[in-house]
Formats: sequence, structure tokens, C-alpha cells
Amino acid sequence: MSLQNPVFIPGPTNMPEALRKACDIPTMDHRSAAFARLYRPAVEGVARILGTTSGEVLMFPSTGTGGWEAAVTNTLSPGDTVLAARHGMFSHRWIDLCRRHGLKVQVIETPWGEGVPLGAMEAALRADTGHAIKAVLATHNETATGVRSDIAGLRRAMDAAGHPALLFVDGVSSIASMPFEMDGWGVDIAVTGSQKGFMLPAGLAILGVGPRAWAAMETAQCTRAYFDLRDMRAACAQGAYPYTPAVGLIAGLAASVAMLEDEGLTAVYDRHTRLAEGVRRAVAAWGMQPCAARPELYSDTITAVVVPAGCDGTALVRHAADVYGVAFGVGLGEVAGKVFRIGHLGMLTDVMVLSGLATAEMCMADLGWKVRLGSGVAAAQEYFRHTAAAPLRAVA
Amino acid sequence: MSLQNPVFIPGPTNMPEALRKACDIPTMDHRSAAFARLYRPAVEGVARILGTTSGEVLMFPSTGTGGWEAAVTNTLSPGDTVLAARHGMFSHRWIDLCRRHGLKVQVIETPWGEGVPLGAMEAALRADTGHAIKAVLATHNETATGVRSDIAGLRRAMDAAGHPALLFVDGVSSIASMPFEMDGWGVDIAVTGSQKGFMLPAGLAILGVGPRAWAAMETAQCTRAYFDLRDMRAACAQGAYPYTPAVGLIAGLAASVAMLEDEGLTAVYDRHTRLAEGVRRAVAAWGMQPCAARPELYSDTITAVVVPAGCDGTALVRHAADVYGVAFGVGLGEVAGKVFRIGHLGMLTDVMVLSGLATAEMCMADLGWKVRLGSGVAAAQEYFRHTAAAPLRAVA
Amino acid sequence: MSLQNPVFIPGPTNMPEALRKACDIPTMDHRSAAFARLYRPAVEGVARILGTTSGEVLMFPSTGTGGWEAAVTNTLSPGDTVLAARHGMFSHRWIDLCRRHGLKVQVIETPWGEGVPLGAMEAALRADTGHAIKAVLATHNETATGVRSDIAGLRRAMDAAGHPALLFVDGVSSIASMPFEMDGWGVDIAVTGSQKGFMLPAGLAILGVGPRAWAAMETAQCTRAYFDLRDMRAACAQGAYPYTPAVGLIAGLAASVAMLEDEGLTAVYDRHTRLAEGVRRAVAAWGMQPCAARPELYSDTITAVVVPAGCDGTALVRHAADVYGVAFGVGLGEVAGKVFRIGHLGMLTDVMVLSGLATAEMCMADLGWKVRLGSGVAAAQEYFRHTAAAPLRAVA
Amino acid sequence: MSLQNPVFIPGPTNMPEALRKACDIPTMDHRSAAFARLYRPAVEGVARILGTTSGEVLMFPSTGTGGWEAAVTNTLSPGDTVLAARHGMFSHRWIDLCRRHGLKVQVIETPWGEGVPLGAMEAALRADTGHAIKAVLATHNETATGVRSDIAGLRRAMDAAGHPALLFVDGVSSIASMPFEMDGWGVDIAVTGSQKGFMLPAGLAILGVGPRAWAAMETAQCTRAYFDLRDMRAACAQGAYPYTPAVGLIAGLAASVAMLEDEGLTAVYDRHTRLAEGVRRAVAAWGMQPCAARPELYSDTITAVVVPAGCDGTALVRHAADVYGVAFGVGLGEVAGKVFRIGHLGMLTDVMVLSGLATAEMCMADLGWKVRLGSGVAAAQEYFRHTAAAPLRAVA
Repeated sequence: MSLQNPVFIPGPTNMPEALRKACDIPTMDHRSAAFARLYRPAVEGVARILGTTSGEVLMFPSTGTGGWEAAVTNTLSPGDTVLAARHGMFSHRWIDLCRRHGLKVQVIETPWGEGVPLGAMEAALRADTGHAIKAVLATHNETATGVRSDIAGLRRAMDAAGHPALLFVDGVSSIASMPFEMDGWGVDIAVTGSQKGFMLPAGLAILGVGPRAWAAMETAQCTRAYFDLRDMRAACAQGAYPYTPAVGLIAGLAASVAMLEDEGLTAVYDRHTRLAEGVRRAVAAWGMQPCAARPELYSDTITAVVVPAGCDGTALVRHAADVYGVAFGVGLGEVAGKVFRIGHLGMLTDVMVLSGLATAEMCMADLGWKVRLGSGVAAAQEYFRHTAAAPLRAVA
Repeated sequence: MSLQNPVFIPGPTNMPEALRKACDIPTMDHRSAAFARLYRPAVEGVARILGTTSGEVLMFPSTGTGGWEAAVTNTLSPGDTVLAARHGMFSHRWIDLCRRHGLKVQVIETPWGEGVPLGAMEAALRADTGHAIKAVLATHNETATGVRSDIAGLRRAMDAAGHPALLFVDGVSSIASMPFEMDGWGVDIAVTGSQKGFMLPAGLAILGVGPRAWAAMETAQCTRAYFDLRDMRAACAQGAYPYTPAVGLIAGLAASVAMLEDEGLTAVYDRHTRLAEGVRRAVAAWGMQPCAARPELYSDTITAVVVPAGCDGTALVRHAADVYGVAFGVGLGEVAGKVFRIGHLGMLTDVMVLSGLATAEMCMADLGWKVRLGSGVAAAQEYFRHTAAAPLRAVA
Repeated sequence: MSLQNPVFIPGPTNMPEALRKACDIPTMDHRSAAFARLYRPAVEGVARILGTTSGEVLMFPSTGTGGWEAAVTNTLSPGDTVLAARHGMFSHRWIDLCRRHGLKVQVIETPWGEGVPLGAMEAALRADTGHAIKAVLATHNETATGVRSDIAGLRRAMDAAGHPALLFVDGVSSIASMPFEMDGWGVDIAVTGSQKGFMLPAGLAILGVGPRAWAAMETAQCTRAYFDLRDMRAACAQGAYPYTPAVGLIAGLAASVAMLEDEGLTAVYDRHTRLAEGVRRAVAAWGMQPCAARPELYSDTITAVVVPAGCDGTALVRHAADVYGVAFGVGLGEVAGKVFRIGHLGMLTDVMVLSGLATAEMCMADLGWKVRLGSGVAAAQEYFRHTAAAPLRAVA
Repeated sequence: MSLQNPVFIPGPTNMPEALRKACDIPTMDHRSAAFARLYRPAVEGVARILGTTSGEVLMFPSTGTGGWEAAVTNTLSPGDTVLAARHGMFSHRWIDLCRRHGLKVQVIETPWGEGVPLGAMEAALRADTGHAIKAVLATHNETATGVRSDIAGLRRAMDAAGHPALLFVDGVSSIASMPFEMDGWGVDIAVTGSQKGFMLPAGLAILGVGPRAWAAMETAQCTRAYFDLRDMRAACAQGAYPYTPAVGLIAGLAASVAMLEDEGLTAVYDRHTRLAEGVRRAVAAWGMQPCAARPELYSDTITAVVVPAGCDGTALVRHAADVYGVAFGVGLGEVAGKVFRIGHLGMLTDVMVLSGLATAEMCMADLGWKVRLGSGVAAAQEYFRHTAAAPLRAVA
């Protein structure tokens, strides 16, 4: 019966049943007007959440990784240079994907736990007087380390360097959970997926594509077919699709946007901040620290908790799954074993968070880590009850 | 999004999605062979859980209250005497229902928090030398107080008194969560519903009816039509139903039995004991006590927590719902305000229980009750981790 | 895979998935404000569909039969006389239920296939100068014969006779599919269920109870407890329930009313008329006739088809289920074997109806009845296409 | 309410609710053992349906088109030659996709309505003495024309030519509905999707990859990242996934295989043949013909019906959707307007087929085509009733 416990992986997230039901529809002809009636609010709603009026939203039956591939293969040519920081597993993988497609990647190695290094990025761009760099890749929220980078700052750095490179942002684990301003930040392509902030099953790569990215497609030579953005745009413009769309997920996406907007985007972001802060209070009470180097880097969707010396974060994750039926995230790559990760995004309440914290404590005790049972829970309880909704404040 | 939090009312209980899906079926002709294929395993499975081979299982689209009505109106005549203890809201209501049907009820007033008083019951039966008492009513688990009564002991008391009265037992909040032995205890009619231990939506009254009860129907004069047991038996014997059955719930009931038996009934009962004990450890850590007077009366499905002097249990329940979106049970009748109730039956895990305990603590603190945050949670954590499944013991 | 075919029984009807999903909700505390938010629109919506502003809507976890019991036991006393016509299995069963509750029933035997005989009813009422008759029972739509009776006419007859009896109407297979005017027709109690026009699973008895019926409860002596209307009214007035409500069905009922009103009640009734007429055209093309004696008696929710001499309607129904996985209704009681019944109410389209007609034809041919394959289908096609929605008329 | 009518597009197909429910599961950690327990039976089951023991099954969150891309980009290098017949829209699109990836395609232009031309293919292979052709592409079932090609024959032609090219087969609209023998026919890569014979939502590309294809990957230079087969194989071998898998669809796929095997693959194929023949009888009764040139080319999953001169197939499809809420398939590419397509694969019954045929007839009449209402239905009825399951034969 462990499927009854919430999950605390950083995605796929806990899904509201109303969204699962919205996805679970009988077969609909995707060449019909009924499909167009589903599709339109989904893409328009996503555009609002991306914060774009100049960009267009497109979706592929795929995942965020497919979105990365679509971004670079549609806009670049083999041999082109892209600039990227490597500071976690997901920025690492995007770099790897670029290389497989014949791109040169100028990598700025950055400690895992740091964000995109604005100064180093700006320096690299200033040094690139010939504008060999065609695109800058940035991972808004490094899911491996729980680090949120400053995309607005990156845009300022690019502008300060006077560099015309495109800006592609991986917002897979940030969009719809933390503020995102595609137009405001001058993002040319934003990539996300259905299974994080949108609280849906995995299966949709979602892209916001701005005018400069469309322009770059005129000359881009990387091969692409399944992920061809112009084909997709042309088909969708006619209420069609180049192949069979994931109709259920698109219906779910429209419902997700409606649910998010019904709560209010600010309220959604605030809820994530509140839940994240509760987790961080617990982490502090345990005498541990986030992997993220400084508070301004703290992610509101995922906390990678650095485990004490001699402890194995992966063992905790395995133990939680085996003994308590609760899923946390393991450390990946350079931080494998050194952290365990608590996802706190998507459909989640303070009450659910407390059960995850309580479970982590039991696991620590079971594994012989030094922990006082209830200590993290109490710190989070204290925070949660002082930040609960209006009715509480009226009482206490 | 509060529907995402578990409920801690003593029923309806948290429902496994697999059971909800089993209920949620397209329309099936209830006069078809397909319906008979659903029906048979449901009634046979319930009989195993009731612990009866001599009794027959029948179901009405109704609730446990309807089951009470079926029990008494099919077997008794206006003016007949029944013997019952009143020691909580549900025993009280059954007494009231009997009176509405023209029965005389010899009530043994019993403190709320006590169980069925075996000595007093035996004395009353011994005193009834003319056998005016036609039936003894017992509430196996008083949901209002969290008290489990000793039905085996009641049977022994009846036998010791040499009294031929029928024994009717309300097992609404015990059956399928705590051991029940209809044949072993000489229960003539056992009553339950779909929405407690069977973890289904409300809507089915479920009765196990033994041979002596069937015999009593030959002469019983209370009026009945919708709840006529003999009509129901005759129709079901032909694969039919006297009116439209709740096909989905019956399909769900078959699935519920399969799920319970897949876990193993002993394991199910042990799980309830373990979760209940975790709750009781928390209650003790809070410096409070169960309403049930003594440990041997403690229910494994529901704990009524006596609140400190000056505190209002109902306020806590209202606060938990309003501020945290978590449902506990209020005190009813004589214990209104004096207790709040934590349901811990049906589909539930230790992890889910911890979130309920943590919520109760936040509410207490919000309301100015004296509580140390995390104290009850820690007591339960300690107990849960030392009683977790095998993998834990291998580690710790 | 036969669950994929529509059913053509007169209820439970084919259920829109949206309504099944509305029913299939996680556990909600039925003592919470959230439940009250579900309950209110359900009862208010049903009142609109019943056509009453003076009556109150109440619901029991039960079926239509339970609704009959509630109607008579709450308003009458043992020995009271009720007047009813017997002209089908469902009017017969209501009469039987009354007798079990100690009522005298003055039965007007009426041929099956006829409606409530207004003249005979009026004569009986006129003859009852002492007003021994306390209530008149009428079955609006006799599901056994496919006969719709004239309730407005019955009211006029009662008024013409100047008789003060209450008027109780069984609208189980008419309400929400055919026009019903509780206030307009002076109906004191209207009874229906969830599983017909409301297109939900079985499990709710739904009653509209008018002021004269409430008044009658002051003195009524029939025993009742589970079905006590005043208890239910008192509890619901406080946002509570006397026992555990069928929360999911109530949520579904609110959604059902919204779906019906979104289509428009007039459109819903017209759709039923259109589908019924299509079926009747097919029946005529087969050279058969409805059981209903005259066109003004034709039900729009169910057609009982009289089978040719020497043919067995029950065999057809069994054959359709066994060989084609399609459910029709058998003849009941006096018309057993002589008719088979095609339900055409609830969630149904013209396209679905055609598949039922085509199946019936295959069965007839298989069983050696004289039928030209496609003949009934063609008659219905011809009718359907000339009465299809606007886009068709623009084309053809 | 038109979602209640079955669809008659050639995919996505009508989905059994049991499979939709199997897909609709709460979030599960895809790095957990629980996921591995889902994954294993899915891939093993698909292998049985593909008819392969030497090949491995892999799945991408994608569609059949993504499967095509995976097949060619993992095994071939830019500049390589592939041989393919163009005889419908789907063979055309695969050819186009190859060209976008820098492959040379030697196209054998073939009339639409014909199958893969074995003689011409063999001749081309014989002429390729230098073995420039690295792969042969074949569309097993051309969904655009309703033509099934002879893959066993193609293998014999390749063997007769003594040519070592790989054989890649698009079985998107055949696999799980018509016999497929990956090992028996020497298919190196078979491609399908979740939304046709497997009766699931779209969203999974499913590939069977044989040993010669794996070997070819050692040297293949086409760029790929998202669709990299060796990455996928390596991850899956460890119970992992290179990115977030579509867990629900994989759960559904396991359930789909179980459902198909429960019916029996032979029974599944026979059912498709029977339904297809019923449709063809109707088409003949209408005086029309399949687009497929000869009976041995007739597809059992889709019939493209050639419309009479002066009629517009696309108008019929639009009319059916607008007026009757029924989805058929339009003609694509060279046969646009000249055909309309009736899908008859996946979850479908004879009864459902009849409703589609009846609808098509109404549309024809509405549009002024010459048709006798009921004529095609009657032809199909006659065929269906003589080929119904055992119970029928016992009766008629």
C-alpha cells in the first residue's frame, strides 16, 4: 500500500487526482475540432505561466530531454559553439547532448552547489569577440543540487557583454513552481516538461520559443525530424499535429493551468517557498545543510541535503523506500552518496511535507545517524503554524 | 488541495485507489450472468472475514444503520424486549432505532469509556427467567469512545445465564480491521458497512445472518419491506436482486476482500494494532489519555483522546479542518467537546499516521494547549521504527 | 470486452464518464464544510428538475424502492387506505410494499399497456365520501410496459372529485428524462433514484417532499427509522446527515444536474423523444408494436416491444447478452416472454441506438423470427437523419 | 456527449477502460524496484507479441514517428542508402524523415493501393551489387490506404537477392492486431506505438531491436541523443531509464499484453479479421470498393473506402463528426478526398462496428450520395451473425 504515501522525489511530482482524471479521457480524434478546443487553452495557458507574449508554446510527446534536443537541433549547426556551466547532473547532461549533436561546448566548470557563475559567463562572452558562441545554456533550477540560478542576472551579463548569443533555459524543475519570466529575462527558448510543476504524468516536452529562435531556424543545419519545431508550428497552426499527439496530457495541461491560475500563480510560488522553508528549518534542526552554497541559491522545489561525514545518502533513500515505502531522491554524479534529496514541488501540502520529514528522521535513526526523532518535524511545525493561512492567524 | 491529505476520521476511511477503480465500472446489467460473477466472490469473501460458514451474507444499498434496522425488524415483533448497554453514541442510536420500531429496550446504562458490561448483562439475562428478552445487542467497537468490547465474553455470559436470546453485533467499525469470529462467538447477526474496514465508499449495509436468525424470521412481525432479508435471500439465490443493486460497490467489495486476503487478515489486524499503538504512544507523550478506560478496551481502529481540562476537542477538530485541511472526528453526545477522535483504520500507513499526529500537535499549539511540538510524533516514530517490517530489523 | 457495448436496459443507464469521475472522489469528511458545499447544489438542482419550489429534496443511501418506503411510512398510519392502479410490475411492487407496512390498498386493476385510468381513479375518489383514502399512488412511467401516465390529468381528476388525498408519484424512470412538474401537478411526494435519468450508479433514493406531506408526518404512525424524513431534514438543515451519506453519489448528482442543465432540460427531453421515436420507427418496420396501448401513452425512456406470436422475448434478451454482449430488458410479470424492452434513456446518442437496433435484428434472425436485417435500422436512420442537429439541415 | 460514440479512426483506437485505469496510477519513483516490476512484464510481453526471442524491446516517450527516427539514426550514417517503396502517406513520411537525417533513399514509386512491390524490391537489391543499400524500409500496414504488405515475402526477396541490408518494418498499425513474426521474418527493427493494437493512449514508441541492428550501432554516425538505443538499453538493464519514463503507459502496456494474451493472440487476430470482413461486406453492399487493390492486400485494421466519382470522402468525414459525433479518417496525400477510412482495430466489437456503418450510411444519404439506408448494415449483420461466437452457432 505504499503508493498511498506521498513521494518526495523532485519529479515526477504528486499528481492531483483532478489532473489525472483530466488526462484520462476516451479516445478523441486528434484531427477534430474537439482537439483544437483542448489544445488552444493549453498552449495559451502555458504561455502565461512562462511569462511570454512574444514566444510560442509547442509540445512534443517526449520529456524535458527531448525539449533540450529540440532547442539545440532546430537553431544550431554542427560545429557551432555553445556556452554552458556544468554545476550538476542536469547541466552536465545537456552539455553531453549538445556534443552528440556535433556542437562544441565551452564548459565553465563550476562547483556543484553553486549557480550559473554570472561573472565567468560574462567574461567568456566578452572574450568571444568573434561571436563564435551561438547560444548560452542555463539550467534555471539544478535538480541535482537544489540550486536556483539567476536567469535575470545572466541576461544582464549577456547584455553587458554585448553578446548576441541565444539564451536557452532549462526550466524543467522550476517552471510553474517558481517565478519565470521568459520575455522579461530575454529567454529565447524555455524548456520544461509535464511531470514537475504542472503535476502531470511524464510524456510532454514543453517549449516556449521566441522570435530570435525562430529566426535562427532559417539557417540551422543540425539534423532533426521528430523534433522539428517548424513542422510542429505549421501543423498546429492548422489545428493539426505532425503525428499523433498525447491528447490526454494536453487535456491535462489545460486543466493544470486552470488549477494553478485558480490558486493564483503568486500563491503557488509562495506555497512552494513556504514548504521549502519548512524543509530547510528541519534540515537545520538536524544539524545538516543544503547542498546549495548560499541562501540566495536555495531552490524552492528541491532541497539536496548534505549528509554528515561517514553517512551515505543513497542508503537513506534505499532504506526509506524499502522500509517505509517513501521515495526520496538519491544524489547523482559528483554528489552521489553525499546528499539525499527532498522534492517539495507540485501538489503538496505542509501536512504531507511533515510526513516526509518524519520518515527521513526514522531512516536516519535506523541507520545509526545522529538525530533526535521529531527534531526536524518540530522545526517545520513551528514554521508552518506561524505561516499558515488566515484562519490560523485569527486564532493564535 | 486539502483532499490530498489523508483523513483521520473513524470512517469513511482512506480508500485505496485500486478499490475506487474497482467500484467505478460502466453500467452492467444486474440481471446478467456477469453480475452473478461479481456477486458470488463478494459474499463468499465477506463470509470468510466475518468468520462464518453457517451464516449467509446479504447486502443492501444502505449504510450500517440500515443494517441495524434489517437485523431487528426481520427477527423481532413489536413489544419484544431487547437488552443493550448504552456506552456511546452508536449503541445509543441502535437503542433509539429499536424503540422506533416498537421494541422495548432494557438499557444498561454504562459509563462512556467502558465496554459492554459482561457482569451486568449476565445478571439481566439471569433475571429474565421468562425469556422476555429476545435479543441482545452489542456494539463491538464503540466508535464514539474508541472502546472495543469483548464479544466472546458476552457470548460466554449469555451461555452462563442459559439464555436463548439472539445475539446481534454491530461490527461497523471493527470488521475487517480487528478480529471477528461470527461463528466462534455465536453471533446471530453481524452488521457492518462498506466504508470502514472494507475501505470503500459508503452505500452498502452488509449483514451476516446465522441460522437462528433465519428461524426467527418465521414469526417476526415488525414491518419491513425494503430491508426484508428473506426477499433478499430468495432473489440472490437466483442471481437476482429485489431492486437495483449497487453493482459498483459490490464489485469493489470483492476487490476489497481480495486485497485484504492478499495482505493476509492477520497482517491486516496486526497493522491496525501497530498503527493504533503508535497513536497511543503519541497520546501518552502529549500527557493525555484515551477515553477508553483500560488498555484491554483500547480500540485498534479509533482513539478518542480526552483533552485537558479547559480545552475543547471540537475546536481542535474545526481548526485542523480549517487551517490544515485535515479531518479528525469530534466528540459526540456525552463526550462532545471532551474528546477528539483519531481514526486509524482502513487504508493507512505509519507514514500517514505521523502526518496526522504532527497536525494535531500544530493545532494544539495554535489553540494554546500545552504541548511540545514533535513530542507525540517522536514517540510514534520510535515505536514505528522498532516495529517496522523485516528490512529495518536487518539494518538497525 | 462486452462492457464496451452500450446497455439498452431501462436502467441503470449508460453513464457519462464525467459523472462517474465526479462520483469517484477521495474520502471527504461528511461533517465538514466541504460536504455542505457539495450537498447544497445537488438538492437545489434536483428541485429545479422536479419542478418544485415548495418541496424539499432529500436523499437516502438506498434505491427508488427505499424512496417508496420513505414516502408511505412517513406520511401514513397502519390501516390507512391508499388508492393505486396496478398496470405493470412497478406499480404492483409499490402496492405490495404498502401492504407490508399495514396499509390497505384499494387497487384498480388495469390492463398492462394502459396508463393510470383517470376515470376509474376519479370514480373511486368520488365514491370515497368519508375520505378513507389518504393517498393516491401513481407510477409516472411504468418501466415494465413502457407506458407514461398523465399525472397532470390525475391531479385534475383528484381535484374534480374534490378529494384531499395526498398524491405520491413514482418518477424513477421518468424524472430528468421526461418533463415533470411537481408543483404544477400538485405532487406531494415525488420519488426517483440516481441510476436512471441522472445517469449515475444506483444507490440514492431521491425524494421531493411537499408541504402537505410534511404536515402529514405529524400524525403518521407507520414505523420508520432509517427512512425517517424528519430526521433527515433536521440533520441536513445543519449541514449534517443522520448517518454516513453516499458522498460520491451526491457529488455526482450535483454534476449530473449541471450536465443536464448545460444541455438544457428542454433539449434533454427532446433528445429522449427523438431517440424514442427512432426506436418506435424501427419497431414498426419490424412489423411489431409497443406494449403501450396508444401513442399518447408511449414512454420516451423505454419501449416494451410486443413480440410476434410464437416468439419468446426473454429468449431474445438472453441471446443478445450471450452472443453479442448487449443488454436489453426482459418482460416482467404478466408480460414475461411477451415483450422485450429497449431502454433509451440517460446518456445515449442516435448512433448508440442504431447499434442496439442492429443487434436486436441479428438476434431475431438468429432465433428464426421473421425479420429483414437492416429494416428497423433503416427506418431509424431515416428518422434520425431528418431530425439531426442544425449542421445536417444546412447540408441536406 | 459525442465522446460516448466509438471512434472509427485508424488510431488512436478505442481504449478499454481497464487499460486506461492501468495507466492512471499515482506517481511512482521510476528509480524504485516497483518500477522495475512494472517494466519487466511490459517488455517481455511485447517481445512475445512481436514474435521475437533474439530481439530486445525498448520504449521511448514518443510516438511511432520517434520510433522510425530511432531505427534509422542508431544504425545508419549520413550518406547511407536505404531502399523503400512509397505507396501511401506513412511510407512517404518515413522516406522524408530519412532524408532529413542525411540518408539517401532509393524510392520505388508504387501506386497507392498496392503493397510493397516484392519484385521491384528484389530487382533493386540484385542491382545493388556493391551493397550501398544498408537498410530496407517497409510499412507493414499502410494506414493511408488500408494495405497490408507481405513482409515474409520481402524477406524471401532479400534472401533471394543475397543482399545483407537490414530490414526495418513499420508495424504501427498492424502489431497486436494482425500476425507479426519479427524473428520468423528476419526483421531487424520493428517499430510500433502504444495507441493502436495496444489500445493505449499515444505516447510510447515501441521498438523490437534485433542482433544485427545492435551490431550496426557500433559504426553508425547519424546523430542521436534522445533516441539513443544503446543508452536506453544500458539504463534499462540496470532497472533505470535515461530520463523520466512514461510510467503510466508502461504499466498500461503490461496490462494490455495481459489482456491480449488473455483473449489469445489468435483470437485477437481472428476478431480483427472478422470485423474487417464485416466492414468489407458493407462496402460491397454500398457498391464501393476498398482502396487496396486486391483481397490479399486487404488490411484487417483499416479499410480505406474509395468514394464514388463526384463524391468527396473528406466531406463525409467532416459531416460525420459535425452531425453525428462520429470520427472516421480522411484520405491523406494522393488519395485525399478520394477515400474515407474506417478504422476497425483495437478495442472493438461487432456491435460497435454496426453503429459506424449505420452512421456512414446516414452521412452518405445526407450528402446526396446514392445509398440505400441499412444496406451495408444488413450485409455486415448477415456476416456477423453467421460468424458469432459458439453460443450463436448452437442456436441458429
